[in-house]
Amino acid sequence: MVFEKVNSSFSTATVTLPMPQPGEVLVEISYTTICKSDLHTYFGRRGGPKPCILGHEIIGRIAALAQQPIHDYAGNSLQTGDRITWSVYAQGGESKMAKIGIPQKSPDLYKYGHEPFINNRSLNGGFATHCLLRKGTAIFKLPTEITDNEASPLNCTHATIAGSLRLAGDVKNKSVLVSGAGMLGLSACAMSRENGAGRVYVTDISRVRLEHALAFGASRGFTADQLTADKIRKKIESEGGIDLVIETSGVPAAMENGIDLLNIGGTSIWVGAVYAQRDLSINAEKIVRKILTIRGLHNYIPTDLATAIQFMNKAHQKYPFHNLVSKTYLLEQLDEAFMVADNEDYYRVGISPTKKQNQ
Amino acid sequence: MVFEKVNSSFSTATVTLPMPQPGEVLVEISYTTICKSDLHTYFGRRGGPKPCILGHEIIGRIAALAQQPIHDYAGNSLQTGDRITWSVYAQGGESKMAKIGIPQKSPDLYKYGHEPFINNRSLNGGFATHCLLRKGTAIFKLPTEITDNEASPLNCTHATIAGSLRLAGDVKNKSVLVSGAGMLGLSACAMSRENGAGRVYVTDISRVRLEHALAFGASRGFTADQLTADKIRKKIESEGGIDLVIETSGVPAAMENGIDLLNIGGTSIWVGAVYAQRDLSINAEKIVRKILTIRGLHNYIPTDLATAIQFMNKAHQKYPFHNLVSKTYLLEQLDEAFMVADNEDYYRVGISPTKKQNQ
Repeated sequence: MVFEKVNSSFSTATVTLPMPQPGEVLVEISYTTICKSDLHTYFGRRGGPKPCILGHEIIGRIAALAQQPIHDYAGNSLQTGDRITWSVYAQGGESKMAKIGIPQKSPDLYKYGHEPFINNRSLNGGFATHCLLRKGTAIFKLPTEITDNEASPLNCTHATIAGSLRLAGDVKNKSVLVSGAGMLGLSACAMSRENGAGRVYVTDISRVRLEHALAFGASRGFTADQLTADKIRKKIESEGGIDLVIETSGVPAAMENGIDLLNIGGTSIWVGAVYAQRDLSINAEKIVRKILTIRGLHNYIPTDLATAIQFMNKAHQKYPFHNLVSKTYLLEQLDEAFMVADNEDYYRVGISPTKKQNQ
Repeated sequence: MVFEKVNSSFSTATVTLPMPQPGEVLVEISYTTICKSDLHTYFGRRGGPKPCILGHEIIGRIAALAQQPIHDYAGNSLQTGDRITWSVYAQGGESKMAKIGIPQKSPDLYKYGHEPFINNRSLNGGFATHCLLRKGTAIFKLPTEITDNEASPLNCTHATIAGSLRLAGDVKNKSVLVSGAGMLGLSACAMSRENGAGRVYVTDISRVRLEHALAFGASRGFTADQLTADKIRKKIESEGGIDLVIETSGVPAAMENGIDLLNIGGTSIWVGAVYAQRDLSINAEKIVRKILTIRGLHNYIPTDLATAIQFMNKAHQKYPFHNLVSKTYLLEQLDEAFMVADNEDYYRVGISPTKKQNQ
């Protein structure tokens, strides 16, 4: 299903399945969830190549491999039929960025669901029956226990949160504030909890979302307004304050507020601010005297995806990630699925080329 | 010499030397340098207790110990006559802050040169013949090769820079911008260089200071104005850009500029912003997309002082730290010394209770 024009119906394209070249893997897609950034592109709120096959929160089964053996990120040999997820990008590993541990900023980055659609060798998005993985993609076998709709957001949402917690360091017994209770925020609540955090506060403008977050390990939710109130601040302080903020909303006031709330030695990880916005007002004296750390993160590194899979393998029994995805739409219903996804009734809307689930 | 009133002559006080209690050390002061923060207090640009014995960049020899054995930070037994430096603060080690690795923010902090002068048990500043070290002070024996005036700033300037580089992580082959070429900045140039940095740029508003910085390991200096010029920025970019900023000036525009100049994955360490100032304008999207880190540091931990001593033990032969201190004033000339220190002809002005040097 090809995205050709903002806010217009997807068009159908049919191509011959490509033969994988050495290092490549042809995947038959099982499931793709619509990420917020797919919506931003579709509705013209951000740029992107056209025509393009959107969708990057994808999983599938290996349909074909080149003759040479190919391995997953752990070094195991891959076979036809293996159920896999993969890093949202391929890159050659030779760039300066890759060498300093930031492969997601390599100049040769090839990002799934974000490249022009030209021919059968550019099947790279999730809203299709197949995807051709390039050499330099970190591939991971999926545990059978994780359902398709739990698995699809792994290579975007959950891997990004795993990256945030990697940057944050040890959270054991630390008090965490998750800012924004969307999919990233719920993942941050649950993953902080699983990593041994003490209190996990969550903030959002929506009370409904805050309510949901309680099922994902949050101890307590506050609306953005509540969090600026003296009474609430004193309450949080009396409970030990906040050591770590994981900021997923990208809202400037939320980032400023998060810094204000941090304990001495605290850290704020920003992952939400990926859109044009007003500058923040930051008091540097406070950052210095309180010995604070601010770290931005965009995308993630392959080990973060490995961490996210390990997390989900344990966490899917404890937290209702399964319920965050709508009924499954067929590929041919993609227009409708995008409309449903944009009205925010669901955290994710799921697409499957072949089957309807959860009806 | 007691500081009683802003911008007024120091007054002389005479007390009986105190007997060290268990865990305490009585030091006969050899040398003290006037730190900028002493000047800020003396000239009323910041608050502080009065009466007070100022001066915290101090070294001396052990004059008396309690009967129980006492050890330096490395665990070696201390003896009368040992030439020592010590952490700028004492603290009990039992606070939450001490336990999370930020002892310098312990609520029971007792800071040398910053406490009220009451009696002979509160001899805690450097502008005196003696200083009584409390239990919970990290003490370090000084290598004989380091001269008095090189050694005095260790427990403030150089330890703070060692802390900055601890926060920055490995700087090997990285490109560093040192912002501010005062004593902290010169230390940052030399220590980055000794830690294996690639290019070490330095920026300041003073061309004279930039010139001096070249003798301390800086590859090249830029005035603050030059650093905002497109041509200079392109030049720096063509040389590989900047991976790490060590910001010692505390000037808001310098901090903003530093962030602007950072490469993807870069880090800015702020240590200079310890005075009231306007808020910074920070674009969070840039922090996120460029995966930047900002870390504030105020004071330091004892291992930073150990690192600073090791650094100076090698570096004093390579870099002219010795020349940064004025002729030595006697304690009785303290008023004059403060006037000289405030006119900025010297990076530091030195005081010795007993001897004149470098005349």
